[in-house]
Amino acid sequence: MQACHVALIGATGAVGREILQVLEEREFPLRDITLLASARSEGTRLEFRGHHRAVRLLTKEALTGVDIAIFAADVETSRDYASHAVAAGAVVIDCSGAFRHDPQVPLCVPEVNALPPHQGMVATPHSLTVQTVLALAPLHTAASLKRVVIATYQAVSGMGREAMEEFDQQLRDLLNFRAVQTGAFPHQLAFNCVPQCGDFLDNGYTSEEMALVDELRRILAVPALPITATAVRVPLMHSHGAAVCVETARPLSPDAARDILASAPGLQVEDDTKRLSYPLPVHANGQDAVFVGRIRADQSVPYGLHLWIVADNLRKGAALNVVQVAERLLAS
Amino acid sequence: MQACHVALIGATGAVGREILQVLEEREFPLRDITLLASARSEGTRLEFRGHHRAVRLLTKEALTGVDIAIFAADVETSRDYASHAVAAGAVVIDCSGAFRHDPQVPLCVPEVNALPPHQGMVATPHSLTVQTVLALAPLHTAASLKRVVIATYQAVSGMGREAMEEFDQQLRDLLNFRAVQTGAFPHQLAFNCVPQCGDFLDNGYTSEEMALVDELRRILAVPALPITATAVRVPLMHSHGAAVCVETARPLSPDAARDILASAPGLQVEDDTKRLSYPLPVHANGQDAVFVGRIRADQSVPYGLHLWIVADNLRKGAALNVVQVAERLLAS
Repeated sequence: MQACHVALIGATGAVGREILQVLEEREFPLRDITLLASARSEGTRLEFRGHHRAVRLLTKEALTGVDIAIFAADVETSRDYASHAVAAGAVVIDCSGAFRHDPQVPLCVPEVNALPPHQGMVATPHSLTVQTVLALAPLHTAASLKRVVIATYQAVSGMGREAMEEFDQQLRDLLNFRAVQTGAFPHQLAFNCVPQCGDFLDNGYTSEEMALVDELRRILAVPALPITATAVRVPLMHSHGAAVCVETARPLSPDAARDILASAPGLQVEDDTKRLSYPLPVHANGQDAVFVGRIRADQSVPYGLHLWIVADNLRKGAALNVVQVAERLLAS
Repeated sequence: MQACHVALIGATGAVGREILQVLEEREFPLRDITLLASARSEGTRLEFRGHHRAVRLLTKEALTGVDIAIFAADVETSRDYASHAVAAGAVVIDCSGAFRHDPQVPLCVPEVNALPPHQGMVATPHSLTVQTVLALAPLHTAASLKRVVIATYQAVSGMGREAMEEFDQQLRDLLNFRAVQTGAFPHQLAFNCVPQCGDFLDNGYTSEEMALVDELRRILAVPALPITATAVRVPLMHSHGAAVCVETARPLSPDAARDILASAPGLQVEDDTKRLSYPLPVHANGQDAVFVGRIRADQSVPYGLHLWIVADNLRKGAALNVVQVAERLLAS
């Protein structure tokens, strides 16, 4: 692998900081790294490989001379700047969601779909898509998916740093008998479950519910696969859970599914009900693996399985997947 | 209605205290009330209608002269004492779960199934069954249920007072950087989601998942209805949520379902996505109604609907349903 110059846009955000940590842990071959952010965060100093580096203001000019530009800021930033990075010769890896539905832009989870030829831009999916597709792909190969029903238990950090600070403040206020303030969330989230992730669409679903459906279909390469989802924000900081109910065209026993999932890349099966062992958000925090458990037959359909899937949404759900894509780009 | 003598067994527990409050609020016609509990709680004084009453030790003798004996303690207590209450001439209302699967004992949610002839004992279902069946029953009448998939978001108070105190302590310990202790829960519950409610059965499901399936079938009177569930404990104190995915034999639009549910007894539709209005645990706390929202078409099946159902598990999920059954008994 040839060392390269990486620009990280949104370096001070929740996902940006996690990407920086994963680049360091995996000893990503770097010639240089440029940390970029909006004016609000300009000048912030972040530690990387033992040195503090100042975050610079994102401008078109700051994107020249870059080999890989990782966009980890919001959708608007990617829409405004990603094409400039490509024009300046960089390959863009976008995890903002701005290009996930663009048929010109490959959507990649390296363990599942090989990186196809691209036109200077690769997108990474929503964190829930990453963790769900890692489990669904090997089951699809084994028994052909017929329908998937998903209910999510999404952590606060998926909404970014501002929401994390608000959640933290809500908890402290409630435990000290003070009134709760809301801003990033439409409703109190502390000690609550909010059935809204993203914005509402005309069909009654939220943007994140439909993103999950559309992205899973794209990555599994089954454009019409019946998938449906309910996305709920739960009051914890890190790691998403998903209760996933899978119907298959061919029979697949829980034991066979467990074996298939245990040998699939990126997955760790944690499924010993006798020892009360199953995936938990607090165990997944900081881990690279996607954890799968509660694997059992769904007796309400001819061939069906239940799965409970948990992963650290900032790590494998976002940062690690981005760095894995960058590693594929370097290798190709 | 004739005033009667009620004995409340498990008076100091989370459900027991809520029953006492509902009896008071609804001005239940009482001649006398006897509060009973185990030796641990003997002598505790509870306020009822402006007077403090001492909780007495539960014995066989304490159950004589009672018209209605409400069992709100654990399964073992009901197994040990309910038959004595019946033998002594009382009608037992059991909400412990001990008799929910007994075909001799009617399982009753007054809005849904009329109280049939009984042999001295009536059971009330699990709190999740109550809130789910209130929404499913009118949809079944309108369009005939074909399959139901449920994912639950269950509050801590469903596990009783000891668990509530442990959850509270875990939160305070974590926010003060102290180690978390577990006892009532198998794992840390604060800032976690635990996919285990009840004990594991041989089929890989938990006792509460199968209770939900079995009880819904019984109350809807469709013994073979395909139902499947995943039950997850979430880190909040009161009110259960349920993401419910319904397939029907006949078409039913979200608008038609909304109208049907809005006029069904015990339900309140809260479903205005433009105003970000949907059922929330923090809004349901202390309320009698079961709240339904996020009503939308499930596009992954020919005729399907999604519902998000929230109710205060101690109130309508347990105490209010018990008192409503007692009111039916008095009226009959």
